[in-house]
Amino acid sequence: MIRAFLDRLGDIVRPIHRRYFRSGVAVELKDDESPVTRSDREAELALRREIADAFPNDGILGEEFGSERLDARRVWVLDPLDGTRSFVNGKPAFGVMAALLEEGRPVAGLIDMPILSERWIGIAGEPTTFNGAPVRARDCPDLSAASLNATSPDMFPDSASRAAFDRLSAACGQRHFGGDCHLYGLLACGWIDLVAEAGLAPYDYLAHVAIVEGAGGRIADWRGRPLDLESDGTVLAVGAPELFDRALEHLRGP
Amino acid sequence: MIRAFLDRLGDIVRPIHRRYFRSGVAVELKDDESPVTRSDREAELALRREIADAFPNDGILGEEFGSERLDARRVWVLDPLDGTRSFVNGKPAFGVMAALLEEGRPVAGLIDMPILSERWIGIAGEPTTFNGAPVRARDCPDLSAASLNATSPDMFPDSASRAAFDRLSAACGQRHFGGDCHLYGLLACGWIDLVAEAGLAPYDYLAHVAIVEGAGGRIADWRGRPLDLESDGTVLAVGAPELFDRALEHLRGP
Repeated sequence: MIRAFLDRLGDIVRPIHRRYFRSGVAVELKDDESPVTRSDREAELALRREIADAFPNDGILGEEFGSERLDARRVWVLDPLDGTRSFVNGKPAFGVMAALLEEGRPVAGLIDMPILSERWIGIAGEPTTFNGAPVRARDCPDLSAASLNATSPDMFPDSASRAAFDRLSAACGQRHFGGDCHLYGLLACGWIDLVAEAGLAPYDYLAHVAIVEGAGGRIADWRGRPLDLESDGTVLAVGAPELFDRALEHLRGP
Repeated sequence: MIRAFLDRLGDIVRPIHRRYFRSGVAVELKDDESPVTRSDREAELALRREIADAFPNDGILGEEFGSERLDARRVWVLDPLDGTRSFVNGKPAFGVMAALLEEGRPVAGLIDMPILSERWIGIAGEPTTFNGAPVRARDCPDLSAASLNATSPDMFPDSASRAAFDRLSAACGQRHFGGDCHLYGLLACGWIDLVAEAGLAPYDYLAHVAIVEGAGGRIADWRGRPLDLESDGTVLAVGAPELFDRALEHLRGP
């Protein structure tokens, strides 16, 4: 039921982004200087309409159009275009995210990549799927063999979080930038080992929880606390759970 | 003739990378700590074989298997897998590059993206094509409206080149990391405005020359000198030629 609905949300939004991608669509800057386009807005309106039709009592929090009924038992958290910077630069690694919270706990998530035709769905207690097939994160014996990823070196909101990321980088086998929500899907499939990011909003990370956990990985904030609407914007995701505490130590520092 | 041959080179390599991408192929580190896989090597061997069959007197320089007949009038310069870091992380934004030099001057280039199914071909004196159709870089009134791109903040070989890139970043409307050879194709299509990189080898930049120039852009090193086999590894590419001198000033510094 929820799986089919998440699939439908992805199906609804793909044609919108495909229409506007590389079309020369106007880019506006929001108050926080992040870019937004007509594609962001049309996608979120389409998602909200679908949710309101199917589940009129559920709450919704979206990046572009705010919140309604956040006190409902079930709340949907939407990022209609994660990676707008990639989108406006003609790079196809942008996505759409939807998370379902029950009593504040993320229990389901969708990551859809409209141009790459890749889709991850996670549901608490079920195996995560990639384009419909179950996937597992990979084992990794040690941080020194691990691939660490983050969207951008410019995403860290302060020098302390950047220094923490650099400490973790130094302990890892390699680091690579770029990817936005795609990174958490890559981790769920066992193609990368760690993602460490900061400065995120709830719509940037809540969809990842069920996807990473359903693939056997672990995800939390940089203090190891579960992610919810009130988290501090730091996220650490690992494919091999035994790497989690070691990675946290590097983020916390000496 | 050269156009059809560059198309053939792209066609030959695509299935090799598609076979190994996300397959768990082993990653080795070269002496310079850059990763290499079986996909890099098989692709270069396939390219070299095709060139040797078609043009047995031409020289070849490739990233993985060295050089032969560099004193020939025509020399092919090959990067069988540009963006191996993306490739090994399961990210599809990696490519294949081939450049043709005549008497040391780059006169034709191929950028092929095997997973994205995107291909740029540039030939001196002809319009650059993207998947077979002519393209043009876009106008940009001023650096403050420009999108600056580079593959990674970790690519700059010294603090001076990193500082130069940061100065240029500060003058530009936005900067975005990630992309490797794809960036020069995006610039040729008018989706981004500038690429500034350093620490590159000849096989990393020679294919770009005909592609950028054939789309109306300009490309040179960070002192404005034409690119050839002996260049210093810095590259500045702009879509709107009038941005070139202004960008160079920022790279040179106060």
